[in-house]
Amino acid sequence: MKTVILGAGNVATHLAETFQANGHEIVQIYNRTPQSAMALAQRLNTDYCHSLSQLKKADLYIYAISDNALESVIHEMPVISGIHVHTAGSVDINVFGNKFGQFGVFYPLQTFSKDKKVNFEEIPVFVEGNNENVAKMLFEIAGTITPKAGLATSEQRLKLHVAAVFACNFSNYLYTVAADMLKSAGMSFDILHPLILETAEKIQTLSPAEAQTGPARRNDTTTMQKHLDTIASPQLQKIYSEISRLISERYND
Amino acid sequence: MKTVILGAGNVATHLAETFQANGHEIVQIYNRTPQSAMALAQRLNTDYCHSLSQLKKADLYIYAISDNALESVIHEMPVISGIHVHTAGSVDINVFGNKFGQFGVFYPLQTFSKDKKVNFEEIPVFVEGNNENVAKMLFEIAGTITPKAGLATSEQRLKLHVAAVFACNFSNYLYTVAADMLKSAGMSFDILHPLILETAEKIQTLSPAEAQTGPARRNDTTTMQKHLDTIASPQLQKIYSEISRLISERYND
Repeated sequence: MKTVILGAGNVATHLAETFQANGHEIVQIYNRTPQSAMALAQRLNTDYCHSLSQLKKADLYIYAISDNALESVIHEMPVISGIHVHTAGSVDINVFGNKFGQFGVFYPLQTFSKDKKVNFEEIPVFVEGNNENVAKMLFEIAGTITPKAGLATSEQRLKLHVAAVFACNFSNYLYTVAADMLKSAGMSFDILHPLILETAEKIQTLSPAEAQTGPARRNDTTTMQKHLDTIASPQLQKIYSEISRLISERYND
Repeated sequence: MKTVILGAGNVATHLAETFQANGHEIVQIYNRTPQSAMALAQRLNTDYCHSLSQLKKADLYIYAISDNALESVIHEMPVISGIHVHTAGSVDINVFGNKFGQFGVFYPLQTFSKDKKVNFEEIPVFVEGNNENVAKMLFEIAGTITPKAGLATSEQRLKLHVAAVFACNFSNYLYTVAADMLKSAGMSFDILHPLILETAEKIQTLSPAEAQTGPARRNDTTTMQKHLDTIASPQLQKIYSEISRLISERYND
């Protein structure tokens, strides 16, 4: 499948590499910053451009750009055939308006960092099309890069994205809080690596509700008070209190 | 090493099994509820009792009981020789007062659920002793069940426990929030398994500060507002706002 990638960030990079690795032809990388477009294009040994008027013909245009830029890029895009898809969790399919005959969404549910390889076989991709035929085609394309292709409406995808923010982005932030705290105690964050991994592995077989442990789960108010007294930042004390209260209420009412 | 385990909950069970598997002799299980003491004792093919006056002689007494019960059990405990240790993250070593000649702490840093086997080789155990000699002995005992034995003062251990609550208990609660949200969208929580695992695996090689992604990291206010509008519970909206604000401030100031 001849594919043009718009964007050169983390999602663009990982998708471009995976598409290429699975036999699709990346014909061009577009990015408004020529250096970024060039860097990714070189990695893939393909062409690049930094103006939408220079876009090549392709079967699939993947808009792997920031949610904020999406509307203006669609607006400036010439009307060309092919399927146009964005990759955003929280942007409705209707962002494309009625400019193109075939459009949709190609949403890989994963956290991409440039320096960390990911195995696409493990990544669910949720697609949506402007009609059944487009949805079917996108589902098939997704199936060429992952066994975990699925369909999701814009509404479902938005909820999925919020869920992912809680489970992934916010958990990672809590890891950061823990790292800061260990640093202040003169201890290495490495100490927590096995515990963090075990916590994530546990819910592969137990439900998170079953896997919950800790002072709030037991409503152990003495320990919770000691912890609050230990936390220096009032903002983090607040986070500690509120999450603990929600856990306690869920399990001890 | 002849060992008595006080308690029959998750920590007691996992410790007892690991001690036995590594060649220590569990001579007795104590629990104030005879049925619980008996159940664990049968699993280990050893004796049990439900009264502190019936405790056998041993080299090591492990108080794997709830933080709340610890003080009263120590109070009621007959003065017997051997090393007395508790397993609590947030309880000072001085909870033992001056009742025993040898006492300390034996704190395994892990989340234990009864139905989930853990590999002790991966679990750090932090010890503290009432003097250097006891600390050294406890360090050596810890070394028989894990290559990750370490020393921590009561103050360090408390901070470590708080850090573990943020990184593990609270992350697990966020998984629960995500599971609820997916359920409301008619989707299975399984969808998030790979993402959650990848998030935990990422910080084994990157620092969590480097690994942070998501709308708050990018200060993408449009997406964050969409997410807030999607969250039904005011309490979870609050959690979403506050964690997002802390992330935004950290990365975008």
